[in-house]
Amino acid sequence: MAKLSSTARGVYIIAATPFDDAGRLDLESTSRLCDWYLEHGVDGMTILGQMGEAPKLLPEESARFVRHVLDHLKGRIPVIVGVTAPGLGAMKHLADIAMEAGAAGVMVAAPGTLRTDESIEGYFGQVAKLLGPDTPWVLQDFPLSGTAQITAKLIRRVADAAENCVMLKHEDWPGLDKITALRRMEAEGARRLSILTGNGGLFLPLELGRGADGAMTGFAFPEMLVGVCRLMAAGEADAAMDLFDTYLPLVRYEQQPGIGLPARKYILAKRGAIASPALRAPAPPLSAETKADLDWLIERLDRRLAKARG
Amino acid sequence: MAKLSSTARGVYIIAATPFDDAGRLDLESTSRLCDWYLEHGVDGMTILGQMGEAPKLLPEESARFVRHVLDHLKGRIPVIVGVTAPGLGAMKHLADIAMEAGAAGVMVAAPGTLRTDESIEGYFGQVAKLLGPDTPWVLQDFPLSGTAQITAKLIRRVADAAENCVMLKHEDWPGLDKITALRRMEAEGARRLSILTGNGGLFLPLELGRGADGAMTGFAFPEMLVGVCRLMAAGEADAAMDLFDTYLPLVRYEQQPGIGLPARKYILAKRGAIASPALRAPAPPLSAETKADLDWLIERLDRRLAKARG
Amino acid sequence: MAKLSSTARGVYIIAATPFDDAGRLDLESTSRLCDWYLEHGVDGMTILGQMGEAPKLLPEESARFVRHVLDHLKGRIPVIVGVTAPGLGAMKHLADIAMEAGAAGVMVAAPGTLRTDESIEGYFGQVAKLLGPDTPWVLQDFPLSGTAQITAKLIRRVADAAENCVMLKHEDWPGLDKITALRRMEAEGARRLSILTGNGGLFLPLELGRGADGAMTGFAFPEMLVGVCRLMAAGEADAAMDLFDTYLPLVRYEQQPGIGLPARKYILAKRGAIASPALRAPAPPLSAETKADLDWLIERLDRRLAKARG
Amino acid sequence: MAKLSSTARGVYIIAATPFDDAGRLDLESTSRLCDWYLEHGVDGMTILGQMGEAPKLLPEESARFVRHVLDHLKGRIPVIVGVTAPGLGAMKHLADIAMEAGAAGVMVAAPGTLRTDESIEGYFGQVAKLLGPDTPWVLQDFPLSGTAQITAKLIRRVADAAENCVMLKHEDWPGLDKITALRRMEAEGARRLSILTGNGGLFLPLELGRGADGAMTGFAFPEMLVGVCRLMAAGEADAAMDLFDTYLPLVRYEQQPGIGLPARKYILAKRGAIASPALRAPAPPLSAETKADLDWLIERLDRRLAKARG
Repeated sequence: MAKLSSTARGVYIIAATPFDDAGRLDLESTSRLCDWYLEHGVDGMTILGQMGEAPKLLPEESARFVRHVLDHLKGRIPVIVGVTAPGLGAMKHLADIAMEAGAAGVMVAAPGTLRTDESIEGYFGQVAKLLGPDTPWVLQDFPLSGTAQITAKLIRRVADAAENCVMLKHEDWPGLDKITALRRMEAEGARRLSILTGNGGLFLPLELGRGADGAMTGFAFPEMLVGVCRLMAAGEADAAMDLFDTYLPLVRYEQQPGIGLPARKYILAKRGAIASPALRAPAPPLSAETKADLDWLIERLDRRLAKARG
Repeated sequence: MAKLSSTARGVYIIAATPFDDAGRLDLESTSRLCDWYLEHGVDGMTILGQMGEAPKLLPEESARFVRHVLDHLKGRIPVIVGVTAPGLGAMKHLADIAMEAGAAGVMVAAPGTLRTDESIEGYFGQVAKLLGPDTPWVLQDFPLSGTAQITAKLIRRVADAAENCVMLKHEDWPGLDKITALRRMEAEGARRLSILTGNGGLFLPLELGRGADGAMTGFAFPEMLVGVCRLMAAGEADAAMDLFDTYLPLVRYEQQPGIGLPARKYILAKRGAIASPALRAPAPPLSAETKADLDWLIERLDRRLAKARG
Repeated sequence: MAKLSSTARGVYIIAATPFDDAGRLDLESTSRLCDWYLEHGVDGMTILGQMGEAPKLLPEESARFVRHVLDHLKGRIPVIVGVTAPGLGAMKHLADIAMEAGAAGVMVAAPGTLRTDESIEGYFGQVAKLLGPDTPWVLQDFPLSGTAQITAKLIRRVADAAENCVMLKHEDWPGLDKITALRRMEAEGARRLSILTGNGGLFLPLELGRGADGAMTGFAFPEMLVGVCRLMAAGEADAAMDLFDTYLPLVRYEQQPGIGLPARKYILAKRGAIASPALRAPAPPLSAETKADLDWLIERLDRRLAKARG
Repeated sequence: MAKLSSTARGVYIIAATPFDDAGRLDLESTSRLCDWYLEHGVDGMTILGQMGEAPKLLPEESARFVRHVLDHLKGRIPVIVGVTAPGLGAMKHLADIAMEAGAAGVMVAAPGTLRTDESIEGYFGQVAKLLGPDTPWVLQDFPLSGTAQITAKLIRRVADAAENCVMLKHEDWPGLDKITALRRMEAEGARRLSILTGNGGLFLPLELGRGADGAMTGFAFPEMLVGVCRLMAAGEADAAMDLFDTYLPLVRYEQQPGIGLPARKYILAKRGAIASPALRAPAPPLSAETKADLDWLIERLDRRLAKARG
C-alpha cells in the first residue's frame, strides 16, 4: 500500500467503530461499514479517531480492529490510524501495529496540558523522531476537544522540523483564516502540507475555497462530502455550495458536542451501514425528541433531493 | 412601560452597540439601528449583552447608551438591559439606572468561577434579593462564553426561589433537551418561565418545536427570526424550516466565536443599519477573505430570496 | 486479605511506579519500594494513581504491576488500585484483575467532561453498579487535575446511593471546609465515609483537625505523614504541627504541578528506595537548578532533624 | 515622583482595598494601611491588583482610591497601579489618571481568551503603544488566575518590542525555571527587566536565589517579605530561609484560591491595619473553623518568634 504523502486529497472519512448492543466490537458491521463507505465514493479512511471511541478500546481491541479493517480493504483506499495516547510508548506501539498491517499513516494530537509553543513543538518533535522516517503522520489540530492550541506559525515550525509530517487535520474553530495563512507560507516557499478539514464539515466549501485539499470528518452522508470536493475541484463553486446547503441542516445538527457521535451512529444504523447504533459506556443517550428531530431532518432532506432530481 | 413577564414571546433582538471609527459611542447610529430593528418587526430589544461589547463601556457610557435607547424607543417595544458585572454593587447600580429609565427588565449571567450548584444558587439568590420585587430579571445560561454550567434542575430551583426571575436566556450547547426538560417540569406543576434562545439562532425552529417562546440573539437578518417565530406559532413547521434553511449558511458563519460580532457589524453596516462596523479594541479584525466569504453568502441569499419570490 | 471499609485510617501512601532508564517497568525496584514504604510505617498503599503514571502503562503492564505488588506484600497492608479509565469497560476489567489478585479496593475519579451534578451522580452510579457489592471503592475528588468538580452534598448523595463506596480521597483545593461539611452530615445521621487527604499533604494536620482519617499522598518522606497522623490521633496537635512544619518546605516544593512527580522520584532514588528516577515520556525534565534546590532543602531538613534530636 | 525602572528591587506590597461593613470604600483605613505598610519597611506599593478587588470598584471609585493613596503617601515610596480592563480604552483611562496623580507605573495582564503567542504579543504591543513612552508598565504573568499562558521567550519578545515595559510580575506556577531562563537571556545580551514575584510569596527565597529582584504580593506579614529580601541581598541565604520557614505555615494557608483574600483581610484587621475585614459581594465567607485555624497558626507564629528572640 502506498504511504500517505502531502499530495493527498479528497474525502478521508472518519469511521465509526461499530459495537453490538452489549458493547462488544462488531467486526461484521465493520466490514459492512467499510464497503458502504467505498460505495459512497470516499478516497480514504481514518480509523480510531475521537469519533471512533478510540480511548474506550483496550489495546488488543484497537489492534484487532486496525488489522480487520486493513485486511478487509485490501489496499483499495489508504487508511490513517489515530494513535494519540497518554504515553509516547503506547503511541509508538499502536503506530507500529498499524504500519505493519498496511496503514498509509498515523494521526497524533497534542495533549491540552501542553500550553506553550515550546512544549508543543517539543512534543511533536519527540513524536516525529519516535515514529521514524517510514511512518508518515498527520498533525491533528482540534483545540475544541481539549487538545493544545496551535498557531499557523507553530504548525509550520513543526512541519519544517519533521519531514514525516505530511498532513494537517484542521479543526480549529474559527479556522478559515488559518488555512489561508498556511497556504500563504507555502506560496512563499515552505514545503507543502496536505490539509484535510474536520469540524463535522460545517465549513467545507469555504475551507476548500481557502485552499484545503479535502475533508476528514465523519458526516453520516459521505456522498455529500465527496460531491462537494469534486464540484469544487471542477471549479463549480456555486454548484458545490448548493449541494452542501441541502445537507447543512443535518451537518449543523450532528456538530453538537456530545450528541454528534450518537446522532451519527443513529443515522448510520438507519441507513443500514451498521447493525447497532450502540456506543460504549459512559455515553450520552439520544432522547426520543432528538431522534424525532433527526427523522424529520432526514425526511426533509429526502424531499429536497427528490425535488432536485426532478 | 410594562414590565417583563413570564408570558414574553417572539424576537428580542440582541442589539449591537454602534461606535464610530475612533471607538466613540455613535448615538446617531444607535437611533438608526433602533428604527431599523423596529422596521424588521422585532418584539423587543436586549442591549448591553456580550454582543453589545458591554464590558468595554465605561459605566457612564453604559448609562448614556441605556437612556438614549429608551428615550428613542418611547416604549414602543420592551427593552432588557444586560447588567452582569464582577461586583454585585455595580450590577445593582446599572439595574437601577435601567429600570428608572424605563427598561422592562434586566439580564444577569453567573461568573464561570462558580463551579458548583450551591454557589450558583447562592449567587442568583443574592442577585434576586438585591434587584428586589420590582425588577424582573432574565437568567442568562451561556456556558460556552465562560459563564457557569447550570442544569435544568438548578434553573428550576433558582426560579422557584425568586419570583422576579421571569425568563431564561437559553444558550447552552447542546441545549434542545434542556428546553424539553424545563417544559416537562412546568407540565408537572412548576411556575412558567419565558424561554428565549440564543446561540446565534442556529437551532431556532427546533428550539421552538421543543417549547421555546422565541429568540434572543443578534443575527443580522432579524426578519428571518421574526418570520420563523410567526410561522411556528401558526403551526407551519415546514414553512418555518424552509425560511430558516435559506438563511442557515449565514447563521452558521456568524456563529463562529470571536468572528461573529465583527461579521454582524460588517453586515449591519452593509445593510445601512449603522454607520461604521468598528469594534472597540481589543477586537479581532475581519480579513479580506472573510469579507469576501460574507459578500458571497449574502449574494447567494439574495438570489435565493429573489427566486423564492418568483 | 480484608476488604477496604469505611473505618480505614492512617497513611495510604501513593506509590510511584518505578521504571528503568529505558522506560521499562522495574519490578525489582517495585519490591524494594514496597519494603521501604513498610519500613517507614505506612498503613496501606495506593498504586496506579496519577502519581503512578497509570495512563502511560499498557493494560498488560498495569496487570503485571498490580499482581507483582500484591504478591510481594502478601497481605501485610491493604492495597488500593487506581482504575480510572476513559471507558467503563476498561475500568471494570482492571478492577476485576485487582480484586482477584487480592486488592482491598479500587479508586475511581470522574472525567472533567462531566460538568453537572446530575451527570456526575449518574457516572458514579454506573461505576458502583458495575463494580458490584464485593468491590469497595474510593471516590477520588481531585478537580485541580482536571477531574469533575463535586460538592460535599453530591459526595453525600453518591455515597448514600452506593454502599460499596467506602472512602473519599479528598483533594479539592481549598478543601478544609469540605471535610467539616461532610463530618457534619455524618453527625446528623449519614453513613460514615473514611476520608483520606491528598494535595501532597500540604494541609495534613489541619485536615486531621477537621476530621479526616489520614493521608493518601505520595510525599517522599512517608515517616512524616505517619508521625503526624499518630501524634494527632494521640491528641498532640502542637507536636504534630511541629513535626509537620519541619518538612513543610519540601512538601511545598513537591506540590508544584508537573514538577512534583519528577521531584519525588528524584528524592526516592536519592534515598535508595528505587534504582532510577526515570519517568515515562512525555515527562518534564528536572533542571539542574531544581535538583540543587531539592538538595539544599534536604540538607536543611537533615540539619533540623539532627538539631531536634539533640 | 520617580518613574518605575528596570532597576526596581525589594518588596512592592500588594495592598488590600479597605471597605467598611456596608461595602463602602473606607479611606480612613486606607490611610492607616499605607502607614502600616511603611512602618513594616516595604519598598513600594501596588494597588488595584486582583487582591485589591479591582474589578468590583466603579471607575470613579478606582480614581478616588488611586488619588487618595498617592496624596497620602506623598512620594515616600513608588506606587504601581493595576489597570487591567476588558477594553483598552478603560485601561488607558485609568492609567492616565494614575500617572497624573503621581504613580510610578501601571500593571497589565493579558486576558485568558488570548490563547496563542501571536495574539498575546499583539495585545501587549497595543498596550505598550497606547500607554506611550512616559508610562512604564509591568507585565503581569498570572495564568492560574485565568490570564494568558506566556512563555519566557514570549516575555522576552514583548519586552524587546516595548521599551516602556520595565518589570515582570512573575506568578506562573511552577515558575522557578522561568526566572532562570529570563536571566540567562539577559546574560546573553538582552535588556534587563526587574522581576518581582507573586504567588503569595510561597517560593520567595528560592525565587530570589534564581535571580528575582524582590516580591510583589500581599502576604499579611510584610515584615517577613522585607526581611527575607534583605538577608538574601546580604548573601545570608540560610538565615533568609530560616526566617521564611517560620512564616511558611501562614504563607501556605493564605495561598488557597478564594480563601486567600478574606484570610488576609482577617489578619490585617486583627493586626489593626484596617478597621473591617469586609470584602465586596460576591465573596466567599470565612467559616468559624477557618478563623480558628488562622488564630492557631498566628499563635504558633508568635510563640516561635518569641522563642527565636530568646
